[in-house]
This record gives sequence, structure tokens and C-alpha cells, in this order.
Amino acid sequence: MTYKPLEGIRVLDMSRVLAGPYCTMMLSNLGAEIIKLEMPGIGDDSRAYGPHIGEESIYFLSINRGKKSIVVDMKSDEGRRIFERLLAESDVLVENFKPGTLKKLGYGYEQLQALNPQIIYTVVSGFGHTGPYAARPAYDMIVQGMGGIMSITGTPDGDPVRVGTSIGDIVAGMFAAYGTLAALFARTVTGQGQMVDVAMLDSQIAILENAVAKTSTLGVAPGPLGLKHPSITPFEAYRTKDSWIIVAAGNDKLFAALCRVVGQEELIEDPRFVTNAQRNTNMHLLSDIMQQHFSKKTTAEWLEILNEAHIPAGPINTIDKLFDDPHVAERNMLVEVEQPGIGKIKVAGNPIKLSHVPPEKEIPEEHAPRLGEHTREVLIQYAGYTPDEAEDYIRRYQC
Amino acid sequence: MTYKPLEGIRVLDMSRVLAGPYCTMMLSNLGAEIIKLEMPGIGDDSRAYGPHIGEESIYFLSINRGKKSIVVDMKSDEGRRIFERLLAESDVLVENFKPGTLKKLGYGYEQLQALNPQIIYTVVSGFGHTGPYAARPAYDMIVQGMGGIMSITGTPDGDPVRVGTSIGDIVAGMFAAYGTLAALFARTVTGQGQMVDVAMLDSQIAILENAVAKTSTLGVAPGPLGLKHPSITPFEAYRTKDSWIIVAAGNDKLFAALCRVVGQEELIEDPRFVTNAQRNTNMHLLSDIMQQHFSKKTTAEWLEILNEAHIPAGPINTIDKLFDDPHVAERNMLVEVEQPGIGKIKVAGNPIKLSHVPPEKEIPEEHAPRLGEHTREVLIQYAGYTPDEAEDYIRRYQC
Repeated sequence: MTYKPLEGIRVLDMSRVLAGPYCTMMLSNLGAEIIKLEMPGIGDDSRAYGPHIGEESIYFLSINRGKKSIVVDMKSDEGRRIFERLLAESDVLVENFKPGTLKKLGYGYEQLQALNPQIIYTVVSGFGHTGPYAARPAYDMIVQGMGGIMSITGTPDGDPVRVGTSIGDIVAGMFAAYGTLAALFARTVTGQGQMVDVAMLDSQIAILENAVAKTSTLGVAPGPLGLKHPSITPFEAYRTKDSWIIVAAGNDKLFAALCRVVGQEELIEDPRFVTNAQRNTNMHLLSDIMQQHFSKKTTAEWLEILNEAHIPAGPINTIDKLFDDPHVAERNMLVEVEQPGIGKIKVAGNPIKLSHVPPEKEIPEEHAPRLGEHTREVLIQYAGYTPDEAEDYIRRYQC
Repeated sequence: MTYKPLEGIRVLDMSRVLAGPYCTMMLSNLGAEIIKLEMPGIGDDSRAYGPHIGEESIYFLSINRGKKSIVVDMKSDEGRRIFERLLAESDVLVENFKPGTLKKLGYGYEQLQALNPQIIYTVVSGFGHTGPYAARPAYDMIVQGMGGIMSITGTPDGDPVRVGTSIGDIVAGMFAAYGTLAALFARTVTGQGQMVDVAMLDSQIAILENAVAKTSTLGVAPGPLGLKHPSITPFEAYRTKDSWIIVAAGNDKLFAALCRVVGQEELIEDPRFVTNAQRNTNMHLLSDIMQQHFSKKTTAEWLEILNEAHIPAGPINTIDKLFDDPHVAERNMLVEVEQPGIGKIKVAGNPIKLSHVPPEKEIPEEHAPRLGEHTREVLIQYAGYTPDEAEDYIRRYQC
């Protein structure tokens, strides 16, 4: 059977840029209908983020596929009426304004509940809707810094570095999607909606996992480790003739296999390296020995040798390399889509592989919307407008 | 009202170490009952991961709170009977073996379905259950390398670095929890279970977001940026008298405010810095100017000044700093729990703040289980054992 889990679920999406739109992208991938409410003339701020091709922001279109766009001026009476109609027709409202913004417009959670008791109200913000920092603005790099991940990323003697993707936004978007789905599931039992409050800073703390318990019990915060593993050796990256290779020989058997493939079987019985504990103690010495061997061949050559010997290993791919990878293609993780005004581009696929959803249905077929593209359709279908009234609206807002 | 979304949902958990246990921790936080099936004598491999306090692995207990543990030898007839009974009584089965492992034991997805048509079968693996790499072993750092995130993390002229937390495992665990919940939600409509196949490599690609579309359209893979933002200036980290500070002055108004607080108002009208585009072009020059000012005070002093001026800013916290942060405490993101044999420790809280779940219910009250701690209880409650039979079992397996 083919069935997308969120078929029939309608999401009113007032979110902008990344954390909120990533959340609604995840809901959209599972079949929810997403109606993006955008400000006339401007819309989602990320529409202005470069690089652009023609008038289209690549940033915007990569996370807004299949969503519908309607322009609504929330400061006009008409806009508020439309918002209230759409809210009544929706299952979920997602926004990532600074806490209090929607309330100032007269739509605090109580008002939203009064308008639709079943509504799930999902908010994503830098610091959450409670606590002393609630009103502070946040950006990805700020929560990466505050949440501790930057302090454990980088080389031991170098400066801290930012995680290369916007993990501060994305992880919050993922938890928000999970929380929204949890509230939808709870509603099948309780019949009631609820508020889902996800903070970017909270989300950063949640992915520190054992580093929190370690700091709590040992009293010492961990530092960055560069390319090494804190407690398994050898488990690191080596330079090869042309690039890098990561090798993870996590137990004695794999270490012995590794010694054989580099032609130094005598290391297996070497008292400095017999157990993982000893290899950990002599980590730098062992690292130098292995590095000498790995310098002599290319990454591709080593990968063939290591895969043959069943030693876990992998390259450090630049992103373009993923485009040629047969496994990535077979897993449908880089999907070619047609975007009006741009042509064919590739976007990241959906990592949730469900047996009831065939690969070609894993992401929406429709392109990312131009600003206000679905205004007419949404006004008529959900806000009670006649075709003439909708035409007039579109003329007035030039969309 | 108080209601946890997954109350009444039972999860049979054969997963080990991190990605799978992180998934079941997320399900557990929402109220699901988790029954961990562990191998006699050894159990979840991460029980052996240091550091230990007494006999308890801090690594293990930080992600296994509130789960129940039963020892089962899947290679014995009795163990297989227990597994089949528990499967029939469960809603979800989670495992993160190498693909094919459970099938070799006679429990491929078809057999599982035959035993329980409503079962949701969630598998987390390095490369997924399909595709040419399916049989390869993977570890966090290997998928971090293959998935591209390492190639964009680090400094422009330095070596690539690993993201400091095990993002390869954790993000896969998060997608697996989301996929499981999606399947549970779909089951309320279809009445049927399904298979949820989540790969660590797929998950890494899914969090690259716009970097994929950029590489696809521009034909060039992005590189690491260290502490800077690719397209907004100033949006970076500066050294202070005692540490670091991150400053995000994302528009002209904030840039002007920043110039004022550092006492260089003339920069506001300086033709090299008037627009964000010009500031981007002269990024390094502007960075040097700002760095000179930020060196003169401590991070705490600057934070007070910048917060006062509503300029987004934050420290680069080491993890111990989070333990003293009043906002983190008020958001309940570091939770003190009592662990037998260790005493009170702090673990990361639950970032999903639901209005129907009070803060004290956000994570399970129960400690992480010792190996086989709930064997008697689970055998009697779900596998049809009499108390005497259960006692005998426990004696035989010494748990």
C-alpha cells in the first residue's frame, strides 16, 4: 500500500529562514499540506539570501519545496480575517518569530485556542518562550557558541570552530517536527491541541548527550579533539597521497587486520599496542606510524584495500563528491527536481524511508513557490473568497 | 491536563551504543515504555565504555534513563520464544544491527510482520538496508567524513575536523524517532505497521540543506569557514580579554549600533562598510578593526554592553558553563537525577516542551537499568512466565 503518514494534515506556516521552514519541510515530506503565510512584497526573508539564479534564491528553494504561498498583511483587518479563517481550517500553526510577536498582534496561545481548540501551536525560537533570555534574539552561530558544541569542535591547540552547517537551526527544526508529530499523535487520544515550544539553545544541549553526564560526574568539561576519538585507537583520519582517509579499527581483531594491510604484523604483538587501553596511551606514537603508511597511496587505493579487509573506513568527501556516489543515488538522497526559472537542480532527499511510501513520493513533486503563488487558490478554498474577490485581492497585493 | 503523547506505547529495543538508544530515549521521554533486550553477560556494548563510576558507565546511563532491561539469548530456543512473545505484545521494534543480522536469526521483516502485523520495525544503520554499501560497517566519524559535513567544518587553511558530538549517530537517531512516530500516526488510520529504514549517511546529507542546492547549481562545493558567516558581516567570533564572543550584526541598523558601542561611529558612514555587500567585500579589514576593540574587555563585560544595545551576541561556552546558567536551569535542560551506585548526576533534559507535559514529567523518573534489572518483571508481565519460572531463568542467566 502507498500512504503518506500526514495525508490530510494542514499546516499554517508563518515561519521564516531556516529552523521553522526545516520543520515544515519535514512535515511536508510526510504528506502534510503546508500553507506559507508571507508578508506582501517581502515574504520569507530567505528569499533575499544569495546566491540567486534569476530571481530565485537557492537557499529558499532548497527547503520550501511543495509548500503553498499566500501573501497576507497581518496588520490589516482583511489579513487578520484571512489568518483566522485559515487557522480554523488548520491542524498546526508553526512560527519562529521572537517570542511575544504574535501575541502583540492579538494572537497569544489562548486566543489561538479560542479560535481552534484542536490547533497544535508549534513555536521555534532562540531561547524558548520562557526563561530570562526568552526575549533575546538568536542566530545559529550564537546558540552553537552558547550551547557548548563549538567548545568541543576544532583542534586541541586551535581556535574553536563553528559546525559547518547551521546545526543550531536544523536540530531545532527537527525537534520541532518531532514535537509537532507527538502532539498530533496525542490528539488522536485526547481530541485536544497543545503548544509545542522548542528552543534552539535547548536543542543544542540535547545533542551533547554523554558530554553532559561526563562533565557532571568528572567535573571537567571536555575539549576539542580534532580528528581523533576520545577513547578508541586507532579511530582517526590520516593524510593519503591525494586527500584523507578515516579509519576506525575499534577492537583488537580490526587492529590486527589493519597491521596486516599496512604490512607491519609485528605491531600486533607489540606490548605498547596489544590492548585498546595501551593503544590509547600510545596514541600519538601509533598515529605517526600509521600516517607514514597511509601517505603512500591515494584515498581510493586505500579504500579498496580496507573495504576488502572489512576494516571500517571512509573518505572525507567534499559535497560535490556525493553527486557521483552510486549508493547516495540508490538511496534517493540527492533528488533531481524541476524549478521554474532555473531548470533541473538537485536537493537533499528525505532520510525517512517508510515501506508504505515509494521512493518517488518521498519528497513533494511540486516546486518551491514564488511569493504569493497560491494566493488565489488558498483564498477560495479555505478563506471563503469568491473568484472575483480573490482576483481583486491579488491585484491589490500585486502577487 | 497532563498527558504524555506515547503513553501506552511499548517499544522492544534491541539497539546498542548510540543511534538506536538515542531514538528510544526520545520515544521514552514522550512516555513510551522501552524494553531493552540485552545479551546475557555483556548487554549493550556501551556499558563497557568509559569513564565508569563504580560499575556504571556514564556514557550508558546518560541515554538509557527509564528503560527496562531484560537479558535474552537470541541464539537459544527459550530466548527466541521470549522475543516472539514480547514482539507480539509491542508496538515498535528498534534495532541498529548491521543489516541482515536479525534476518539471519530468522526474523526478517516478513517474519516479524507475520508475528505481529501492527508492528513498526525501525532500523538504524550506517548506510541503510538497501544500496551497494548496505553491508558495510559504519561509525560516527566515517559518516561525518563521507556525508560532507567535515569538509565544511574547520578553518579555511586548516585540516578538516570532526563535529565534537557524535552528530552522525545522533541525527540518525532523531530521524529514526521521527519516522517511528510518523508510522505510529499512520497506523491510527491504516491499522497497519510498517518498516522505517534510517541510515546515518542519509541523515548527514539531509542536514546539509542549502549546501546541496548550492553545489548543484553553482557547481562548486563550499569549504570550511572557521568562525565566519558566508554572506553576512559582521557575523563572527572575536577574542576578548579572557575568552571569545560571538557577534551577529546582521543588518545596517545593528551594524550602526555596534559601531556606537565600540566607539567608532565614523565607520557607519565609511563607504567601505555602508551596506552588507560592502562589509562582505571588506570582511577582513572590518574584522581586524572590531577585533582590536573586543580585545580590551572580558566576554562578560562585552555581553552586558551588547545585550543592553540589543545586538545579538553570545559567549563560546565550555560545557561546564551551562551548569551555572540560570536560563538553562529554568528551561529544565540540565536535570539532576539519582542513579543507584553513583548518586546525583545531571543529564541533558528534553527539548520538546509540550503544554500537556509538566516540566517534572519531561524525562522518565526512573534511573538507567543495570543489566537484566527488569528480567523478572518483563517475563511475568509479557512473556507468560510464572514467578517460579522467572526465578529459575534469573538464576540460570545470573542477572
